Amino acid sequence: MSYQALHAHFKRIADLDHALSILSWDEAVMMPAGSGVVRAEAMATLAGMVHELTAAPETGELAEAAAASNLDAWQKANVSRIASDWRKARAVPADLVVALSKARSACEQAWRPARGTNDWNAVVDKLESVVRLTRERAAALADVLDCEPYDALLDEYQPGLTRAEIEPVFTELEAVLPNLVDLALARQEPAVVPTGPFPVERQEALAKALMAEIGFDFDCGRLDVSHHPFCGGALGDTRITTRYNRDDFLESMFGALHETGHAMYQQGLPVEWRGQPVGDAGGMALHESQSLLMEMQVCRGAPFLEFAAPIIQRTLLGAETSAPEWQPENLLRLASRVERGFIRVDADELTYPLHVILRYRLETALLDGRLDVADVPDAWNEAMTASMGLSTEGNFRDGCMQDVHWFAGLIGYFPSYTLGAVMAAQIFRAARESIPNLDEAIQQGHFGILFDWLRQHVHGRGSLEPAGELLVAVTGTGLDTSAFLDHLRTRYAA
Amino acid sequence: MSYQALHAHFKRIADLDHALSILSWDEAVMMPAGSGVVRAEAMATLAGMVHELTAAPETGELAEAAAASNLDAWQKANVSRIASDWRKARAVPADLVVALSKARSACEQAWRPARGTNDWNAVVDKLESVVRLTRERAAALADVLDCEPYDALLDEYQPGLTRAEIEPVFTELEAVLPNLVDLALARQEPAVVPTGPFPVERQEALAKALMAEIGFDFDCGRLDVSHHPFCGGALGDTRITTRYNRDDFLESMFGALHETGHAMYQQGLPVEWRGQPVGDAGGMALHESQSLLMEMQVCRGAPFLEFAAPIIQRTLLGAETSAPEWQPENLLRLASRVERGFIRVDADELTYPLHVILRYRLETALLDGRLDVADVPDAWNEAMTASMGLSTEGNFRDGCMQDVHWFAGLIGYFPSYTLGAVMAAQIFRAARESIPNLDEAIQQGHFGILFDWLRQHVHGRGSLEPAGELLVAVTGTGLDTSAFLDHLRTRYAA
Repeated sequence: MSYQALHAHFKRIADLDHALSILSWDEAVMMPAGSGVVRAEAMATLAGMVHELTAAPETGELAEAAAASNLDAWQKANVSRIASDWRKARAVPADLVVALSKARSACEQAWRPARGTNDWNAVVDKLESVVRLTRERAAALADVLDCEPYDALLDEYQPGLTRAEIEPVFTELEAVLPNLVDLALARQEPAVVPTGPFPVERQEALAKALMAEIGFDFDCGRLDVSHHPFCGGALGDTRITTRYNRDDFLESMFGALHETGHAMYQQGLPVEWRGQPVGDAGGMALHESQSLLMEMQVCRGAPFLEFAAPIIQRTLLGAETSAPEWQPENLLRLASRVERGFIRVDADELTYPLHVILRYRLETALLDGRLDVADVPDAWNEAMTASMGLSTEGNFRDGCMQDVHWFAGLIGYFPSYTLGAVMAAQIFRAARESIPNLDEAIQQGHFGILFDWLRQHVHGRGSLEPAGELLVAVTGTGLDTSAFLDHLRTRYAA
Repeated sequence: MSYQALHAHFKRIADLDHALSILSWDEAVMMPAGSGVVRAEAMATLAGMVHELTAAPETGELAEAAAASNLDAWQKANVSRIASDWRKARAVPADLVVALSKARSACEQAWRPARGTNDWNAVVDKLESVVRLTRERAAALADVLDCEPYDALLDEYQPGLTRAEIEPVFTELEAVLPNLVDLALARQEPAVVPTGPFPVERQEALAKALMAEIGFDFDCGRLDVSHHPFCGGALGDTRITTRYNRDDFLESMFGALHETGHAMYQQGLPVEWRGQPVGDAGGMALHESQSLLMEMQVCRGAPFLEFAAPIIQRTLLGAETSAPEWQPENLLRLASRVERGFIRVDADELTYPLHVILRYRLETALLDGRLDVADVPDAWNEAMTASMGLSTEGNFRDGCMQDVHWFAGLIGYFPSYTLGAVMAAQIFRAARESIPNLDEAIQQGHFGILFDWLRQHVHGRGSLEPAGELLVAVTGTGLDTSAFLDHLRTRYAA
């Protein structure tokens, strides 16, 4: 009985989360600019309600009573997730939750126009509020979880992840990647860039055609446009975005394919556990492993580009062509081009981890109190100059203002990208070992075989076990850079 | 103190209503078809929360305590609205609220595709559920309000309105209009129909250009497309829709202008009372009076069409023209064309009340239990044959399935349209008497003078007084058909 009551209680929370997810998508994709204030107020109220319901004393009582009853493995995992969410929710006072929600909305809304006008002054105070309130929140959580404040933030995005696990991975990548980048730059063959402009409608048609081939369920999902591509919407209503550059169709195409990886995970979560914590995705690093498995392991590889080339030609040009720039070999060179640059989301997979590690170093310093928000632009410039040889002095829009994350309060999120890349390589190696002729299947556009395997081993398991255990079950080991570095050496330095 | 607590309590309710409004807009405009079930569940949960918060015992206690304290006129009206909402909310059990919300969503979602395929069987059971639950709800409300069940439903859309007030108005219109229609048909001059097709993008540009001229605030609002045009969104985020017919630009243009009338009212409500019941619009008949004042009194009149003709020409044709079909006199003939037809939303203002009265007669019969849902198509056919000489036998899509209202559970709403038309004529006559040279101002595109007057006398007053009192204050009388019939005789039979 207490289990059923707990289940119903969390269904209410899930329905509020549904509303918050759609409001958040709407804010980024549809909302008129002047409506930000009323939207921020409404979202803060709903976030406060989610918090109240999660932190309510009866949640803990029901969870304790349910834990003592006879449950199956899924129910047991659900109760354990709920008990942990309850402890964390009670750690943070309700007014801090509301204040942080408002500060995040205000800061993100200020950032949207300010990025375009390179106006750091327009966001610095708001970002200071977000960081200050996030530090308060992290301290409160760390008290209850008995961990470091930054680990408490990591735990929100990837449950159980710690700075101690990240450090050796990032230290190894920092040591290995710069040489690998030099090698790749020296060896890469010239590619021919197809000449645009490519009308947005055709790029959109291309993205939708490839998404449909891969298996994205358009009956329960959409593709739209936003400043920063994301996979959002609610369970059962998956909404991804991309952005269009008229001169470079690969940007929107790979953007959409990346988000399609996230979307396939979301659409593959166990329907019978929808609305319960155990039915949620197993963390953001694991989520990112699915987008990067799609984008980096599959779509930027030769078999996929063999399959996609005629679709690309027909959709963008109206007919197939033998022009050299449109052939799979050239597209592969374009898709695996390495270049040191300013922008994380435009980075290739070889330099990408260096962008992430820079952000990780700065955000841990912000959290530790070793860095002030006012000094972020200088620290950014110094780190970019050191790791990439690129100065961002005075260039905030291509420096510390390029990503929405900090402005939206997502501190502790960045490591997920690179841990996801590492896990993607591990999981894809396991898939290749399990599925005969996987490359041929991809080349023929038979993606079902890969997604059946992923649904069985990853997507359909929701949060049944921690991501670390899932990784061991699927790949035989925990977090391990060898598959990722093998993949990078094969693709870029062979 | 109790007043402040009450104020804060209703702000929470308003924030949930914000979420519900945006979810509802999204459902009609953006949501993928397969996501209807999860959306219906989430909206039912939020509607249940609004109901719980409104009906909570402390709401009544706070309202009672607040009523005894020292309040200004707005606060007093707010408390009185709240006390009345509280009584009504407690009249209906929470499970009935949730069951009705689910039944309405399911029925509306079934109706969307079924209308296109003329499939009455696909909706009849769902509509029966909606009607059955609505009758239960009306009976529960009527008990508390000590009135007839149908009056309890009217009260939800136009507080205080009764069937006793409607009957003489509708009986008079039923007696006068058929002859007036015959007279108009005999006298109307032939009009030249501009030849399409008119691309959707140009029609959209035209609608937006005219909306901007009128004063719609695009910084806090949007124009989109839906099956059935509506004005929705939330306070501070006004979203209207229209629909495009490539062969007839007047349909989307007047659709958008009609919704712009609603939108100007919504955008003109008192900002300082936003989120409190007293800050809401004064009822749906009053709301409709503002859309019809815009569409029928202003935009389908000669001065507006003089102003709009060059904008229409430039936007649709790329340049101004002297071709006769594009001149104001011809556009006026097209805009005031009378024709007996099947579809309410396509009807001219002369036959429109006959469509409304038909629906009023049927829905009161459904509520009274004198008519079964299964017999609605036959009753519709009989009534249409009698009033318009048109048979809808077997033609559900152009008959009883043409409107979303009943399928969305909006029973008691239809009278608002015609009462709104009557009030629009009364209010516009008062505006003309107060504002010197109003016709010239409209002809020159100076709409500010009209909206300043409307903001002062109607929009900015929110729900400070009942609509009946407001009407007396603005026009000197209560509901009165003389201005409406004078207007119709002048425009159609002079």
